[in-house]
Amino acid sequence: MSKQRHDRYLGCSSESLPLARELYQQMSAFPILAPHGHVNPALLAENLPFPDPVALLITPDHYITRMLASQGVGYEELDIPTQPGGVQLGIDPENVWKILATNWRAFAGTPSRIWFEEILTEIFHIEIPLNSENAEKIYHQVSKVLADSEFLPQKLFEKFRIEILATTDGTSDLLVHHKALANTALAQKVIPTFRPDDVSDPERPDWRGAIANLEKSSNISITSFVDLREALRVARDKFIACGAKATDHGMPTAFSIEISEREKEDLFKKAKLEQLSPQEAEIFRGVMLMEHAQMSVDDGLVMQLHPGSARNYSSAIYKKYGPDRGFDIPTKAEFTNNLRALLDKFGFEKNFKLALFTLDESTYSRELAPIAGAFPSVKLGPPWWFHDSLNGIRRWRDATVETAGYLNTVGFIDDTRAFLSIPVRHDVARRCEAGYLADLVLNHRVSENEARFLADQIAYHLSKDFFNL
Amino acid sequence: MSKQRHDRYLGCSSESLPLARELYQQMSAFPILAPHGHVNPALLAENLPFPDPVALLITPDHYITRMLASQGVGYEELDIPTQPGGVQLGIDPENVWKILATNWRAFAGTPSRIWFEEILTEIFHIEIPLNSENAEKIYHQVSKVLADSEFLPQKLFEKFRIEILATTDGTSDLLVHHKALANTALAQKVIPTFRPDDVSDPERPDWRGAIANLEKSSNISITSFVDLREALRVARDKFIACGAKATDHGMPTAFSIEISEREKEDLFKKAKLEQLSPQEAEIFRGVMLMEHAQMSVDDGLVMQLHPGSARNYSSAIYKKYGPDRGFDIPTKAEFTNNLRALLDKFGFEKNFKLALFTLDESTYSRELAPIAGAFPSVKLGPPWWFHDSLNGIRRWRDATVETAGYLNTVGFIDDTRAFLSIPVRHDVARRCEAGYLADLVLNHRVSENEARFLADQIAYHLSKDFFNL
Amino acid sequence: MSKQRHDRYLGCSSESLPLARELYQQMSAFPILAPHGHVNPALLAENLPFPDPVALLITPDHYITRMLASQGVGYEELDIPTQPGGVQLGIDPENVWKILATNWRAFAGTPSRIWFEEILTEIFHIEIPLNSENAEKIYHQVSKVLADSEFLPQKLFEKFRIEILATTDGTSDLLVHHKALANTALAQKVIPTFRPDDVSDPERPDWRGAIANLEKSSNISITSFVDLREALRVARDKFIACGAKATDHGMPTAFSIEISEREKEDLFKKAKLEQLSPQEAEIFRGVMLMEHAQMSVDDGLVMQLHPGSARNYSSAIYKKYGPDRGFDIPTKAEFTNNLRALLDKFGFEKNFKLALFTLDESTYSRELAPIAGAFPSVKLGPPWWFHDSLNGIRRWRDATVETAGYLNTVGFIDDTRAFLSIPVRHDVARRCEAGYLADLVLNHRVSENEARFLADQIAYHLSKDFFNL
Repeated sequence: MSKQRHDRYLGCSSESLPLARELYQQMSAFPILAPHGHVNPALLAENLPFPDPVALLITPDHYITRMLASQGVGYEELDIPTQPGGVQLGIDPENVWKILATNWRAFAGTPSRIWFEEILTEIFHIEIPLNSENAEKIYHQVSKVLADSEFLPQKLFEKFRIEILATTDGTSDLLVHHKALANTALAQKVIPTFRPDDVSDPERPDWRGAIANLEKSSNISITSFVDLREALRVARDKFIACGAKATDHGMPTAFSIEISEREKEDLFKKAKLEQLSPQEAEIFRGVMLMEHAQMSVDDGLVMQLHPGSARNYSSAIYKKYGPDRGFDIPTKAEFTNNLRALLDKFGFEKNFKLALFTLDESTYSRELAPIAGAFPSVKLGPPWWFHDSLNGIRRWRDATVETAGYLNTVGFIDDTRAFLSIPVRHDVARRCEAGYLADLVLNHRVSENEARFLADQIAYHLSKDFFNL
Repeated sequence: MSKQRHDRYLGCSSESLPLARELYQQMSAFPILAPHGHVNPALLAENLPFPDPVALLITPDHYITRMLASQGVGYEELDIPTQPGGVQLGIDPENVWKILATNWRAFAGTPSRIWFEEILTEIFHIEIPLNSENAEKIYHQVSKVLADSEFLPQKLFEKFRIEILATTDGTSDLLVHHKALANTALAQKVIPTFRPDDVSDPERPDWRGAIANLEKSSNISITSFVDLREALRVARDKFIACGAKATDHGMPTAFSIEISEREKEDLFKKAKLEQLSPQEAEIFRGVMLMEHAQMSVDDGLVMQLHPGSARNYSSAIYKKYGPDRGFDIPTKAEFTNNLRALLDKFGFEKNFKLALFTLDESTYSRELAPIAGAFPSVKLGPPWWFHDSLNGIRRWRDATVETAGYLNTVGFIDDTRAFLSIPVRHDVARRCEAGYLADLVLNHRVSENEARFLADQIAYHLSKDFFNL
Repeated sequence: MSKQRHDRYLGCSSESLPLARELYQQMSAFPILAPHGHVNPALLAENLPFPDPVALLITPDHYITRMLASQGVGYEELDIPTQPGGVQLGIDPENVWKILATNWRAFAGTPSRIWFEEILTEIFHIEIPLNSENAEKIYHQVSKVLADSEFLPQKLFEKFRIEILATTDGTSDLLVHHKALANTALAQKVIPTFRPDDVSDPERPDWRGAIANLEKSSNISITSFVDLREALRVARDKFIACGAKATDHGMPTAFSIEISEREKEDLFKKAKLEQLSPQEAEIFRGVMLMEHAQMSVDDGLVMQLHPGSARNYSSAIYKKYGPDRGFDIPTKAEFTNNLRALLDKFGFEKNFKLALFTLDESTYSRELAPIAGAFPSVKLGPPWWFHDSLNGIRRWRDATVETAGYLNTVGFIDDTRAFLSIPVRHDVARRCEAGYLADLVLNHRVSENEARFLADQIAYHLSKDFFNL
């Protein structure tokens, strides 16, 4: 009934399938660029064998754990490490694996299921589907592969044909793993990304600690806004020295504002005294966005903006298990008014590059595509988080291509903590994009030549060029 | 040119059609669960012959009357009963029927047209389409069937294979019809739903009257917030005794808030004196939502939340014809921030079940699917009101399935006042869902086995389990 | 691989293609109604040969120039006239043409590319695609045609089978070109549209100048709100005398409000003194919307509302090149609450017609379709600006047809400054609508008869009737 497996995710029209297949083959030939993600660099630097299947594929994947939570599975049953200190109960991972298998049908229709099964079939060569009956057998099959000396992170990095992998690292991170990797075959292939949210947002409980950390790492005493700016420049330079190409900013909103130096100093003083009102805190964040834009103009780091998530939405989960456990919930986003100051100042700067991401799809056609379709400094980041999926990518292209075209977008971004999912995520996205392009050709909306050109761009060149890789 | 009629609404792809057909057959085998709707229980309890075709199919259906209004037809021409007292002009219903037929093309492409013509063909065995020429003939054909002694509500209930029908009933409703039905073949099949909006919203003009009614029905003098809570518990218990499984809440927003008992008492006092500011009224409503959530934890009634409609939007229509006449217009909705207090307190409660509905489709992927895909207490209600249609269901699945999967949703809900439309609404929805599942299988996004499992879930088990039917 | 060229844009399903073809043929037979657009009436009145290809097809088309800007092309390279005075650098247009050709791939997937290439093939009979290699050749081919004495605006007007073309003209415009056209073959075919934004919005820098202009053109001294209203009535009458059928309102929001005459006078006084707060300015605009609605009831001009664009978003572009240069960015829109006062007063007025447009697609299903599907005075304008495209039209129909049907919408509106693009824009829209209708028929959602009826309506009658053409 269904299409051949090798044609999976290429789309439903048999008329466009032959071209979709060709475009996908063309895209597959390219190595993977992963210019934004959350793989732990220690994993690659230490290059140790992976532990059990659960520690590899379940515990750290908040897409999977939150879906299990939705089915009534408690995080204690999954042995999610509690905070602080990451204490685990020591539950037999095989039991956790069985819980996943028992609840596997909850994932039907989700990208998590697709990626997970793609990993099983394409990387572990295991016959799917996973279910309660074969859970034990599959667990042991996976375990056996993990024990294989060929199955080490650095070997997989090359097997996956990853050309560049960017990690995401805090303001004052010492980048020891990146430095360690400089002496391996992965030299210059694993690069850090500068993420200064801890310092940019004075409403974070750890803001003063973050300032203190930055003082230490930059060796600059921060007693004024000018000091803060200088220390950030030093920190950015350290990242650049380790190969960084970009910064990332995860503010609650995209608000930007231009104020006087005097006002910045006043804000900074109040922040130090923890006397900022919520409105002043928003202004502080808006100022920091402007500052980093200016620094990007000066040092060439590409700026990425990811606004609009209510982080740590369940206080119970946050208190017990810490952040990034699947309980961040998106909120409405606004770009047009919020970014006006920033775009007015930097939107035409030759040396400025800004990628915009959103969790609010109503902004795709209303705000993001019109902005990216006009300002030379701005490109659309691909669908983010909940939306880097088959439907999500189609909806994004559908809502943006007519206003922004293809060349104002960036190639696929996997955004993942799960190292093993990188090749399958890129593969699924390439299939989806190939199918979409083929449909455009079928209906005379792009020519076949253009589609071939665009397929290469999406698979490789757009990201390579934008992120200066 | 078009597909065979028996394949209607199954989707456009001929490749997925064979499986869509099979899945639809599978779904059709199940009886109907109607856990939320607005059928008048008197209709079933009294079991009288239906009056004329207009009183049955046009006057009470605000989907139809508002579309006629949009074409310039005055409600007086349709003999809509004026308020108070439901006075009608006594226009010959055949004339009203002809007005509908004359304007039938305004309904092209709408679910109203599909449901109406499905009723004509499937229930009255009348050849469609309706038009000005055959209006009179069809009117008489329908009238003839209505006069048939086989065509009584209780008989139809069984013929339609309705297993459970939930009505919607006010806080202080005495449920006389539900009690009367306990002695018929429909015993335990027609259950009430507790809808306390009149008491929850102090900005309603009738709020103090609603409190007085509750005092009477609960036999509790309500002089404090504590009294109010106690009276509501009594009222809920009466509904439970009549088989109720759920409550329903139709607030302007989904705002929830936790405040102290002292503050609740202060609010209540101000409310009684009609001294609440709009902000305080919103807090009152937000508190009532929390109270009912707590009561649901205690008594097991499932909570349904339907926020976001500007009710009685046309004051002219409201003054002359009362509420529910097709002039309620949706507004922007917000769930993430509004529900935070409620989910923080009850989101992991084992005994708490909450179904969320919206008229603002931009919240599907942005807020509702992420919430339902994480919290065990929450499920997505199916598309509501303007959106329980072929496009509406597709858009809803498209926007939610990747984040929430299928098992965090509830089965189809007809939400109708129109008893005769129940079987056709469920049938159309089943066809749509079967086609959607078949497309997922065709493109390797769910397996055929999973699709068969999910088809049963959607048609029957999801609602059965969630509503404890 | 792709479909036959003559089937372009008709949709991807081969099953619905035969009917789509027939419906498209049917629609093609109708002349073009262009009831809203921005063609310069001087072009038609003066009837001069078109200058070079760049002045015709590139410089005035902000869809094209903003996309080139997004690729890093400076407006000075395109010889966009600077403000004030429209000074150009005198760059060889052939060089500008080459810049477009070099950047042609940025347009892949956009309606601009489709319209541009349709113009080349259908009007200039030039083989596409445009690229850097053939740019020079194509430039000269186009130039040659432009020099042809058959290629004059008035001849093209007839060749394009335009029945009515409405221009858009400021409050105090003297309509000299429209008057001049009264003595040509185009008499009564080129009509003005009354756009009083300059007077309606006291936050415009030129508001007092606009009032002064209105005093002059109406010959009424405006010292009170009553005077203003009277002068506007005179101005509207002058437009009506030149054939105007409609007004157009481009406010930041759709806010409407009813206040007392006394309050209006107070607001007007403050406005004259430039003392309005932003909130009072919004009230002033909301009052003006109500005033024009009342005047429409009185004089029969159809009201068009286009809210929600942040105009002149880049201050650099605005300062140097003036308005309408591709740097207007949409913002969130709201209709339900904003229009409540206006619809409550005029929503059922027999002589009132209001067409609503939006750049915020989230309002389609949430607010606009429910409003148009209820109030007899309101129709949905077709997709606007960024959205009058193949995806845009599909998304609009998909989101509105089930609630508003077809008959509560208006036919295609080209909204263009680019005279040559009028026939191709209508042609592309007709193809898209034909394909959409055919899909509905294929899936039993409208009958073939209805589809034929609706095709005629969309192509011609809906606009003819609504705009009283």
